[in-house]
Formats: sequence, structure tokens, C-alpha cells
Amino acid sequence: MVGVMTNTEPASTGTPAPATGKLGVLLPGVGAVSSTLIAGVLAARNGGASPIGSLSQLEFLPNPADKTTTGPPIRDAVGLAHLDDLVFGGWDPISANALEAAETAGVLDSRDLAPISGELEGIVTMPAVFDSDWVRNLDPVRVKEPTSKWDAALALIDDIERFRSEQNCDRLVMVWCGSTEVYKPAGPVHATVSSFEQGLKDNDPDISPSQIYAYAAMMTRTPYANGSPNVTCDSGFIEQLSIEQQTPIAGKDFKTGQTLLKTTIAPALRARLLGVRGWFSTNILGNRDGLVLDDPDSFKSKEVSKLGVLHDILGPEQLPELYGNMDHEVRINYYPPRGDEKEGWDNIDIFGWMDYPMQIKVNFLCRDSILAAPIVLDLALFMDLAARAGESGVQDWLSFYFKAPQLTPEQSAPEHDLFVQRDNLLDKLVAWSR
Amino acid sequence: MVGVMTNTEPASTGTPAPATGKLGVLLPGVGAVSSTLIAGVLAARNGGASPIGSLSQLEFLPNPADKTTTGPPIRDAVGLAHLDDLVFGGWDPISANALEAAETAGVLDSRDLAPISGELEGIVTMPAVFDSDWVRNLDPVRVKEPTSKWDAALALIDDIERFRSEQNCDRLVMVWCGSTEVYKPAGPVHATVSSFEQGLKDNDPDISPSQIYAYAAMMTRTPYANGSPNVTCDSGFIEQLSIEQQTPIAGKDFKTGQTLLKTTIAPALRARLLGVRGWFSTNILGNRDGLVLDDPDSFKSKEVSKLGVLHDILGPEQLPELYGNMDHEVRINYYPPRGDEKEGWDNIDIFGWMDYPMQIKVNFLCRDSILAAPIVLDLALFMDLAARAGESGVQDWLSFYFKAPQLTPEQSAPEHDLFVQRDNLLDKLVAWSR
Amino acid sequence: MVGVMTNTEPASTGTPAPATGKLGVLLPGVGAVSSTLIAGVLAARNGGASPIGSLSQLEFLPNPADKTTTGPPIRDAVGLAHLDDLVFGGWDPISANALEAAETAGVLDSRDLAPISGELEGIVTMPAVFDSDWVRNLDPVRVKEPTSKWDAALALIDDIERFRSEQNCDRLVMVWCGSTEVYKPAGPVHATVSSFEQGLKDNDPDISPSQIYAYAAMMTRTPYANGSPNVTCDSGFIEQLSIEQQTPIAGKDFKTGQTLLKTTIAPALRARLLGVRGWFSTNILGNRDGLVLDDPDSFKSKEVSKLGVLHDILGPEQLPELYGNMDHEVRINYYPPRGDEKEGWDNIDIFGWMDYPMQIKVNFLCRDSILAAPIVLDLALFMDLAARAGESGVQDWLSFYFKAPQLTPEQSAPEHDLFVQRDNLLDKLVAWSR
Amino acid sequence: MVGVMTNTEPASTGTPAPATGKLGVLLPGVGAVSSTLIAGVLAARNGGASPIGSLSQLEFLPNPADKTTTGPPIRDAVGLAHLDDLVFGGWDPISANALEAAETAGVLDSRDLAPISGELEGIVTMPAVFDSDWVRNLDPVRVKEPTSKWDAALALIDDIERFRSEQNCDRLVMVWCGSTEVYKPAGPVHATVSSFEQGLKDNDPDISPSQIYAYAAMMTRTPYANGSPNVTCDSGFIEQLSIEQQTPIAGKDFKTGQTLLKTTIAPALRARLLGVRGWFSTNILGNRDGLVLDDPDSFKSKEVSKLGVLHDILGPEQLPELYGNMDHEVRINYYPPRGDEKEGWDNIDIFGWMDYPMQIKVNFLCRDSILAAPIVLDLALFMDLAARAGESGVQDWLSFYFKAPQLTPEQSAPEHDLFVQRDNLLDKLVAWSR
Repeated sequence: MVGVMTNTEPASTGTPAPATGKLGVLLPGVGAVSSTLIAGVLAARNGGASPIGSLSQLEFLPNPADKTTTGPPIRDAVGLAHLDDLVFGGWDPISANALEAAETAGVLDSRDLAPISGELEGIVTMPAVFDSDWVRNLDPVRVKEPTSKWDAALALIDDIERFRSEQNCDRLVMVWCGSTEVYKPAGPVHATVSSFEQGLKDNDPDISPSQIYAYAAMMTRTPYANGSPNVTCDSGFIEQLSIEQQTPIAGKDFKTGQTLLKTTIAPALRARLLGVRGWFSTNILGNRDGLVLDDPDSFKSKEVSKLGVLHDILGPEQLPELYGNMDHEVRINYYPPRGDEKEGWDNIDIFGWMDYPMQIKVNFLCRDSILAAPIVLDLALFMDLAARAGESGVQDWLSFYFKAPQLTPEQSAPEHDLFVQRDNLLDKLVAWSR
Repeated sequence: MVGVMTNTEPASTGTPAPATGKLGVLLPGVGAVSSTLIAGVLAARNGGASPIGSLSQLEFLPNPADKTTTGPPIRDAVGLAHLDDLVFGGWDPISANALEAAETAGVLDSRDLAPISGELEGIVTMPAVFDSDWVRNLDPVRVKEPTSKWDAALALIDDIERFRSEQNCDRLVMVWCGSTEVYKPAGPVHATVSSFEQGLKDNDPDISPSQIYAYAAMMTRTPYANGSPNVTCDSGFIEQLSIEQQTPIAGKDFKTGQTLLKTTIAPALRARLLGVRGWFSTNILGNRDGLVLDDPDSFKSKEVSKLGVLHDILGPEQLPELYGNMDHEVRINYYPPRGDEKEGWDNIDIFGWMDYPMQIKVNFLCRDSILAAPIVLDLALFMDLAARAGESGVQDWLSFYFKAPQLTPEQSAPEHDLFVQRDNLLDKLVAWSR
Repeated sequence: MVGVMTNTEPASTGTPAPATGKLGVLLPGVGAVSSTLIAGVLAARNGGASPIGSLSQLEFLPNPADKTTTGPPIRDAVGLAHLDDLVFGGWDPISANALEAAETAGVLDSRDLAPISGELEGIVTMPAVFDSDWVRNLDPVRVKEPTSKWDAALALIDDIERFRSEQNCDRLVMVWCGSTEVYKPAGPVHATVSSFEQGLKDNDPDISPSQIYAYAAMMTRTPYANGSPNVTCDSGFIEQLSIEQQTPIAGKDFKTGQTLLKTTIAPALRARLLGVRGWFSTNILGNRDGLVLDDPDSFKSKEVSKLGVLHDILGPEQLPELYGNMDHEVRINYYPPRGDEKEGWDNIDIFGWMDYPMQIKVNFLCRDSILAAPIVLDLALFMDLAARAGESGVQDWLSFYFKAPQLTPEQSAPEHDLFVQRDNLLDKLVAWSR
Repeated sequence: MVGVMTNTEPASTGTPAPATGKLGVLLPGVGAVSSTLIAGVLAARNGGASPIGSLSQLEFLPNPADKTTTGPPIRDAVGLAHLDDLVFGGWDPISANALEAAETAGVLDSRDLAPISGELEGIVTMPAVFDSDWVRNLDPVRVKEPTSKWDAALALIDDIERFRSEQNCDRLVMVWCGSTEVYKPAGPVHATVSSFEQGLKDNDPDISPSQIYAYAAMMTRTPYANGSPNVTCDSGFIEQLSIEQQTPIAGKDFKTGQTLLKTTIAPALRARLLGVRGWFSTNILGNRDGLVLDDPDSFKSKEVSKLGVLHDILGPEQLPELYGNMDHEVRINYYPPRGDEKEGWDNIDIFGWMDYPMQIKVNFLCRDSILAAPIVLDLALFMDLAARAGESGVQDWLSFYFKAPQLTPEQSAPEHDLFVQRDNLLDKLVAWSR
């Protein structure tokens, strides 16, 4: 273990320390999502657009007397960092700065970029740790060329500390907004911190770039949230590091379009005890994400992430006659005409009284980055809050934001129901409110 | 007030009395919904189809430790009437018995009706109290011809008591499965029991048939649930009677297709703080319900019932920038090719981060009666349970089943969120479980 | 009849005279469609956008040897006016010039308007002949205030001649792009030219504004095409005038979104002999057109225009078992969130072999003015061509562009099949090609 | 070449010989499509259902004066075999007779099968020539076990001649209704009759079962139509045999659901000169066809068959700015809940005036076999007609029925436009009518 900021005290959760000074938000992957996030925060800071979709900015705490959100605004009631105190940084293999990223992504109209183009251009990306064995179909142009994965880790740690110092940050958080990696579950090299560090030195091919970022985050005590389906944090070494470094982790895979609706509708079918015979989900998208997922090995990561939700919500073991014979298929198709405007089409085959069949079809014309940006903002602020409260390990109270919530050691199954996830999130915030 | 079974004791709620003997289920309107309900209960009783969609038959109580339904089955934990103890009766202006009703409705395949056709035919309907000023577009053939509305009420009371006696029922419940009436809010005649009784005698045109049924139900201490959008119970006299007679009421308008999904998706949008600019709902259906709603005055009843849900879930007052400028339109179209297979198409215009617009389109190919039948079953059993527990007045814990939940005197707004409604339902059942 | 440019020679069709000098395009109604048309023509003229959707600009004549369009470009083969020779004018009750109209309509992005904003602003509209009895829901601000309908006609004739002279036009055409009027079939006042002129003097309430425009067009020998469902030209006086003045007319109701697809899909069902049990079409739109159609009397005009197509394509008389029991419903809903982006949802209930039912659902997210603009351009150029060829009366070879093609005296039923309409159009152009 | 019924006379087309005696319809593959066809013909013969979807039974010839089908009924005007004269036979690797096939397929309700169950059961299938290298995912139980492919061919020839004799058939036709084979374009072994016959003897792995069937058909002078995307007839040997044996061939791939609509809508977009930026087609189906296509190599056959249509209809070479940059994707997904009720979802990204984008989404809830059955009937009758008229080689006038029409030597591109295909079909029939 490299000798930065190690902490061997047991984690303790309590009243969060106040949010003072600057909070650095480090983004591995400055593409569509990151640039949309940054643009929106800058616009909000300049008095423009409201940060729509962000609970940290717009939601209220529950009223203890009932279940309605008629309590005080979250951002006042729990001490969150202010938008004015955020400083953005990141790494990208393609775009040199946030303006270039935004223009390449094509998510935002030029009229929305114009007033903040200077600020965006000033957010220069650092060259990325990149490996085309792990992320397919991209042509990287701005990458580090370390002699080993160990050197890559040291370079990232150096980047982080330099950013902290140059930007005069009081605290940092990291939210992975990079590409989906090829699917490969954790192996022996990921078992412990020492096996992982040896693997870094051995240039072990089983170690992916995102794991190196997460390692660097932990070593610098930077909370790490994983917005992709990568298995980055699903392994022993990172959970061990999270505890040792008293640095929270969270993941995985932002719950934006199709799965957001799936975890809304499935609980309703379960609530009404309507049977489900099949659920066919297809997606078309044309952004960088879609291009990467066009590789079958990378799609595997996403598929695994997306397939679990129905089982956990519907519970076929308890109600086999309703949910025991269900075909759940998920397809993702790279389709350039859509760009970032990801579109989902779900066909749901249900049955009711006397086994009569019915169908629900949902067509979601969404925008991937528009839905993801407020999630990144919330995760950055809530992960910082958790760190200030002394949390470590998996932050399962943030499952509301993820397609495939990571389990804590105590959990046997993830919570997928959007509404239960929300209750859990708000309960935690109430506990930390003053 | 006619002198049957009056009770002036204050209502008291407690442990429900045991369910002994037969429970008579009286259905004003034996059409598609009622015949589908009866057929399914007979089939279940004969060891066939599972009563899919019925919480009283298939759901489990929550585990007190968490929010999962891993407790005991509801039907065991709270003392519900058994399916074997149900006896069905009803009134209909068209069909002479439940078999004829099922065949006219065309909801169920002949192969599903065949094994129970004798039993269905044996459920003979009583002639209906009917008024073509209140229900349009139908050609009634089996109606009472009373000399006054007062006589109509007495005839219904007589029907009820005769049914109770002939069928040897221990208890009765009534669930309105009849047509939608022309929209006309309560007036002075509905203010008190005495004004209403005077109105009956005066043949007041403001008194609708469903009000006469509800009056007869209250006078015979038969709990009354209202499955239509009729304003039957939204008036002083009936609430007063419910208390005086210690007989629970509930309503209104079964939440089956489009509104079921609306009260599922709207909470998700609110949870994620996605703005709503518009919600356009259109429905096509070709059954008797559709025919009646083809009359604009009758549609008004349904429209009022359907329009309220979004406001109450989204709360534009609290979040005006997200929900303050929303166009909510509901259209219902009579379209014979669909028959009972009601189809909804919803177009939802939402917006997110930086005001960027997105769309959700939901196409629900449902079956009206298949979705409604288990609701009627649950309401019959739960209303009977409430009566045995000494409840009176509006049973708002049953809002889960209604498009436009009636308010108790203590409430300022109905609860429309499907998931909150479900929690309320289960909480009540837990309280009554042993 | 006022004494301008009368012609009593019988109409004769022949080789079109050459297109020399300027062609004035007069547009009653300078709203979304007209401003989009003008902007696109200006952009094309400035070397920008291709006039997509315009057969006059992009299509080729058929190869006589087969049915493929591998002949010469239409615009070369028949002598059409060049885009450079078009001069635009019009009347509008709301917008003062084409730029204001475009900005109000919100069809085109500001980045597309910017390069041509000066030119658009220079196209100043003339005050409109307007009557709020005929066009509902609008607040007109720029209207003529004539003392009688006769004076209104004279004022329009004066406008036209002044435009011709000031803009130095060789020829004129008029294409109605104004609002839908209240539905009222032609009555006695519309029977003959003299009854109509007497009606104008008597201020007959049965005379609508669009009829006055059409009268003025005929009197100035300006070909008149009717883009709305108004019954403007469905009456004796205008057909008589068209012949007498040797001035072609055409209509009615631009075939843009839903009906375009309907007249595509219905011929396919007929070709494959698939039965049709029902066709339910709903539309949501939020532009000025939608607002006007929100009035039931105005919607009636549109409904009549839209309902005829299926009968004529499917022919229930010939194949009653396939098409004799069909429910065809059309709904149009004003829904402001959509703006000009009209959306159609069609549900088609078909049946095939052994009567088994199937469904086709078509969701068309279209843009009303984007689809209409090239139709206006083609009609302007083709109507001018017809006039130069000596045509008069109804130009049924232009049915390709209309929802409800007007009949010539020889026709018993309109041709609605898009592909037959196209053949007819191209055949006519081949006949006029050199 | 084996010595049966060889004919070396040049093909000559003329007035068809009369249809006398029985026509044997031989179906390789007696699954969903074949059993639905047979059931429908039996039902029609018994005076029941109309043969909906069949031009041979229900369509009229065009009136020479215009383009309307107001001429005499086709079946009267050209001498087609009567339904009463059809005798069905076939081969299947799974089902023993047509009733078993129908029940396994689940296309038809039991109430429709009941009246004809005896007749269906009497249509016993012959064991199939089958090869699991060519057709994946099936478990065949009734297959021939020849010692070589040459022996397989002889066995089929023997089957055919025995059927002809036992059923007392005057003429035979064969329509391939079997599974999709693995995609493998024709190689050297398919070049000539002699190379193919040598390949049969050598057990060449490049020879597929469908090719052996087609060979047997040609050797017995049985016209052969190919309803699958198999490349059976796309090779030299079969075209050579077709000429030599004066036996017509036709194909390939029945145009039923999604492609039927695609070849309807694409011509409309081309007619209106609307640009196409992308067309994404996805299909879900759960029948045997879907199971076989779940194999990627087999799907390749279907994909090749489906992808060509847009290019040929839209002509990107002539109009590159409209159609030169188009993403066309086709996906087929095996999804058991659908059964035979194949469902297509198409998303079409179009653009119009000034490049503004629009979308069309088509959801086709079809039934594969219901749409295919009348096509098989028409092909059987029309192929027999062609044979009686002395036709040989590819019958391109039947392209109306195929997704990927085979080319005649004179053609450079297939005709995909449904409406042009129909004109060609009717023109041919007119030529043969008396």
C-alpha cells in the first residue's frame, strides 16, 4: 500500500462535520454526462437554470408526522456543500476540456453553451489511464503511457493530489462517468489489497483501468461512486480499502432511463399481484456509450447490471404462480441517429384474473446525460456528506441512484424498488439533519 | 328514516368479530365486471384458477422488521370470509342471470364459462332501479316500476332483506358495479338524511338511482363500496347514515387501467424531481361502460374522477417550476372493436436538467373486467372485515383500489400514490391481525 | 361581377406558356406554415438547405420504359418558375411580418432564422379579412374593417393588384394557409356568381372570409389552392368563376401527418385483402391550428375532411366482409406542450385468415409546418404551371397533396390512395414535359 | 441427373392449360404456417371462414379503363384450381400430422380446430430430410436416415411420386414452409446440375436439406416456391433445372409482418421526398421460427433477406442527400411469451424541410401464420397456373409475396415496392385472363 493518508481507525458514523471550503469533483470520463453536469452547475451558479432532477438541490425532508415531503429543504437541513464551492476536474482519453466534450457530445444546444463556453473551456482534462482491451470501439488520443499499472496508479494519485493542492480543495469526491468496461468478474488478484497491489506491479491483465482509478481514490481518501456497470468495487480489495481508509464507496450504474421506469412499474405490478409472463426491453442509442456497448463483451457488463432488478422486486420464490415463469430480455442497440437521445421500448406481458393476458408497452424517449447529470451532482454531494459523517464501505442508502446497487456485507439482496430506495435515502438524511 | 336496523351508538373500532356463516355479496349492475368476478370465484372454488390480482387471497402481511411482505398470508392473519362462504346476488336492467351477463360481455372465453355455466345461470338478477335520465345510451328491459323514489328505496330494502333471509346470510356487503351516472354534484336534497328522505318522497329529480341503492344499503346495515365515479357517497346524508348505522362506506371508481399506471409513474417522476409539462391520456373501449361514457354528461363524472390524481401526487404548490405549468388532458372514446379490452395511450411530456424535454409514452392493452374483478372481491371481504371491526364512515385505508378516494372528515386531500396507498392498506391489516 | 380580367373563352389545355418574370405567391394566413415555407425558400436561395419534400425541386420524371423515376428532373423537364423568381406576400390577423410569424410559431430554431431575419422582416403582411364567427379562439389585431363583405372583396382585389404592380409580378398564385373555419356546407348564396355577389353586398352571414379571398383570387385571375378543410371551393359560384376566369383551383386540406400515413397503410391492407374492423386516430397538437380546432364547430370541418379517406380506399361495397363493419374515429386534441410538433397515434384493428385479429399502432411524431411547407411550394409552382397551360376548374391531378381532394364534375369519388395520386401527378407532368 | 420427367424443350409461355383434376400441395415443414393454411382451406371448403388475405380467392382483376379493381373475380377470370381440388401433403421432423402440428403451434383456437380435427389428423406427414448442422435449436424426431444426400434426394422423389399416385393428383406444387437454414451463400457445388448431383453423391456439407427438396421438386416437375430466407434457389443448378424441366420457381421469404409494412411506408416516404436518417426494426416472436432464428448463423439468413428492401425502394444513389446516410438495423428476438403472435416495433427517423427531424414508430401486433397462410395458398395456385402456362425460371411477377424477391437473369435489382409489385401481379393475371 502506498503511503498516503492511510487511516486504520474503525469507521464511525455520526453528525457530519461542516462543509467548509472547496469540494473538488473529480470525473474519470469527461464526455456527455460530465460535460452536461458541469454546464448545468455553471448555469445554475450564474443564476440560470434550476438544477432539475437533483434532490440535493430541490427536495424537502419528510415531515415526521406523515409521509409527505413538507419538511425543510434538504440542502438547508443537512449541511451540503454549496454549488458555488464545487470545483470540477477529470480525465478523458478524447476531449481536452469540458467545452470540447460538450460540443462533441451534442447533448446541449449551442445557445445553452454560449454563455458559459469560457468557463467550460477552462476545465482542462487530464490524460486518462486507458486500455483498449477493456474499453472497445474508441480511439483514444489523450492517454497516459505508464510503464506498469502500478505506475498508472501512482500517476493518478499524483494527479489527484496536484488537483487538490492547485485548486485549493478542502475535500474531494470522485464519480466514475467513464465507459463501460468488458465484463470480467473479480478474480484472485482482486481479493485483497496486497494481492491487488502485487497485481498492479505485475501488470496483471485482470486489472481494469476503473479499478486503478478506484484504488487511487481510496489511497487519497476520495469517496468513489461508480456510475457504470463496471465491477470496479465488487471485490474484496476495494471494500477493504474503503474501511481502512474510512472512505465511502457506492455503486453501480446510474439508474436513468429504462431501468428507472422498470423499477417503477414492477413494484406496481407486484403491489396489485398481477402476474408477469415476460418483459422485453430494447434500447437504441447513438452516443459514445452506445458505441462502446456495441461490443458484446462490454454489453455483458450492462446486461448483468440490468437483468437483476425484476427478480428482486417481484420475488418469484414467494409467488411462483405469478412470477415463476418469466422471460426477461434486455437488448441494447447502437443506433447513431439517436445520438444521446437514448430511447427505450419495453413490452411487458402480464396476466390477471383467470390468467387472462394483457400488455403494457412503454416507449421512453429520454436523454441519457440529462437524466444522469443530476444524479452525479447528488452523488458528489451526498458522498461528501457521508465522508464528513465518518462513513465508510458501501453506501447502500444511495441505491436510489443505481441500476445494480452494491450490497453491504449485511445485505442478502439489493433493494431495487424505487420507492423503497427513496424512503431509505430520505430516512438517512433525516437522521443527519439538525 | 324507515325503521330498519337503526343504530345510534357511536362507531367504535376494535378487533374484528369472527367471520362466521355466509357472506352475501350484492352487486348493483351485473354486467362484465360482476359476471367476471363471480365466474372467477366459482372457478377458484372449484379448484381451478388462482384469484390473481386479489390481495385478500394472495398477499402476505409485512414483516415488522423490514418493508418486505414476508409475514403470514393476509387471509390467515386477519379473519376474512372464505371464498366458499360467499353468496352472490345483484340487480341488472339487462341480463337475467350471471351467465347471460358473462356471455353478453364477452370477457371470458366460452371454454372458461362452460364448467360453471350451470352455477352462473343460477345466479338470477333482480330487476333494477333504473333511470334513463341518469344513465344514458342503454336499453333497459328488467327494471322496477315504482310509483316514487321512496317506493324504489323500499323495494330495494325488501330485495336485500329477502336475499339475506332466503340465502341464509350472516352478513351482507354491496359493491356498486353499475354504470356511470350523469355528473351532478350533491345539492340541498343530499344534505341530511331527512332532506334526502323527503326528496325520495317528492321524487326529487336530483336523486339518482345509485343514491337510492346506497340508502337502502345503509338502512339494512350493508357496507357499501362504490366502484363507479358516481358521486353517490359524496354527500352529507350518506356519511351521516354511515355513522348512525355503523356501516362503512368506501369509494370511488375502481383504479384499474390507465389511472393505475398514472399513479405509479407520477410518483416516480416526483421522486426523481423530473418536471411535467403535459400528460395526455386517451382511452378506447367498446364495452357497456364505454357506451354509457359516450354521453358527454356521463363522461363528466369520469373526467372529474380521473383529473385529480396528478395534482395531488405532484404538488405544484410546493414545486411550481416543475409542476406549475402542466396540461393534463383525459379523453375516453367509445370504440366498439375493442370490446372490454380497454386500451390506454398516455403521452407524458417531461423535462429535466437544464429544462431539456423528454417523452414517455405508455400503451396499456388491458382488460377492464379482468383488472376490476379482484378489486371487487377484495372490497367485499375488506368491507365486511371493517364492519366486523365496528368501523363506520369512509374507509380511506382502501384508497388503494380507487381512482378518486373519498375523504374522511379529517383529510384535506386524497392519497393517490399507489405505494403509499398500499402501505396504508397493509398497516391497517397488520393492526387487525392476531 | 366586378370588372377585372374577366375571361369568357372556354378553357383549353395545352403546352404551358414559358415561366417568365416574377411569380407572386400570396398567402392568406402568415403563420407557422407560411413563415416556414418562406424561410426555407430563402435559405435554399441563399445556397443553404435543400428544399426537402418538394417534388417540384427534387423529383425526377418517370422513365417511360418502366415505373422508376429515372427521367430528367421535373424542374428542368417542365418549365417551372425558379425559386429565385418567387416573391412572397400575404395577409395575417396577428403577425406583422414573416419574421414575427416565424418567431411566434416557434417551428424553426433561432439559428436557422438568424441568417435570413432581415429578409423575413421585409415581408410585411397586409391586414386580414377576418371574422370571429368563422374562426374561433384567436385574438386578431391586424384586420380590415370594411363596411360590408362586398367592400372586403374589393379591398382584397385592391391588395392583390397593388402587390402585382409594386412587386412587378408577371403572374400570381394564392395558397390558403389560414385557419380552419367553422363547418357550414354551401347554401343557396353560394350557388352562382350572382347569388354570391348579392350575398357579399347583403353581408350574408353564410359567406366566410376564405370565400371572399377565393372570390378575389378568381376576379384577379389568381390560381387558388386551399390548404385547409374549409369548404371554400366546394360550391357552384367558385367553380363557375374558375371556368369563366380560366383560373385553376385546387384543394382541399394539406395531406401532411396522420392522413398521409393513413392513405399509405390503407392501400396496403386493401392490397393484401386484410380486413379492417376499426381505425382509431387521435392527434395532439399545440399550435394555432390546434387552438382553432379546439372549437367543436371548427373541428367539424376537419373531421369531415379526414373521415372520407378510408371508405374510398377500401371499398366496403365491393368487399363487405372485409370492410363493411368498420369503426373509423378521428380525434384532434389541443395540447399546448406539443406546439407545432403535431403527434398522431393510430390504432388499427385488422383481421386476416380465419378472422383472426391483429393490431397496427402508428405513432407519428411529426412537425406540421415542416411537412406542409414543401406542399405549399409545389402547389404554388404547379398551379402556376396549370394556369400557363390554360387549365381551369379543379386540378384533380394535384390530389397527391390533399386530404380531401375536390372532385371535378366528371368524378364520382376522390382518389385517396397516395400511390395512385402520385402516378396521376407524374403522368400530368410527363404530358407537359418537352 | 436422375431420369424422371426430364424436359429439354425451351420454355414457352402462353394461355394456361385448364385446371383439371386434383392439385397436390406439398409442404416441406408442417408446422404453424402449414397447419394454419390447411385448417383455413378445410374451413372454407366446409362453408365456413372466408379465405381472408388471399388474392386468388377474393380479389378482382383491374378494370382496363382505370386502375380500380372493378373487373371480374380473379378466380373466375383466370382458370385457377378450386379449393375443393386441393390435396395436402408434407414432411415434418416433429409433428406426425396436421392436427398435431396445429395443436403444437397454438395459432388456432381449439374451437376452430374442433370441426375439422378429423380431416387434419388424416393429413399425415412424411419423415423429413433434416440436418441439424443446417437447422439449429430443434429436436427432430421424425427424420429420414439416408446413407447419403443422393439417397435423400431419391427418397424425396419417391415420396413425391407416391403421393401423386396415391392421391390421384393431376399436378403438384411445392411451397417450402420449413425452417430457416444457416446462412451460407452458394458455392461451387451449386454451380451446375452436374456439380450438384456429384455433391449429393459426395455428401457435400455445403448442400442443405432445402436444396435437396428443391432438386427433388425440379426432377418431378413440381413448381417450387420458397417461403423462407434460405438461399435454396439462388444458384445456378436450380435455375438451370427450372428451365430444363420447364418448372417454375419463386422466392424468397414470405413478406408478412414488419417487411410488409416497411415496403408500404418506405415508398410513401420516397414519394413525398422525405429523408430517412435511420430505420430500426425489432421483432419479438416465440414460435418455432423464433427459436431457430435465435441461432446467429440462421439469423444471418433472415437479416440478409430483410436488409435489402430499403436501398432498393429509396435509391440513395439518385437522392444521396435524402437517403445516402441511413442506418438500417434489423433485430429478431426469440421471446417465448409471444408464441406465434410476432410483434414488430419499428422506429423510423425521417427528416423534412430545412432538415428538421421527425419520427414514425410502428408497432405491429401481428400473427405470423395468419398472415402467411393466404400467401401459401396464392403461391400454390399461381405457381400451378404458371406451370400450366408453360412458364419456367424465376416467377418475378410473384414478388408481391416475398421479402427478398429473386431476380430473373434480365433484372438488375428486385422490385420491393408493395404497390408496384401488386401492379405487376395483376398485369400478369390480366394477360392470362380470357
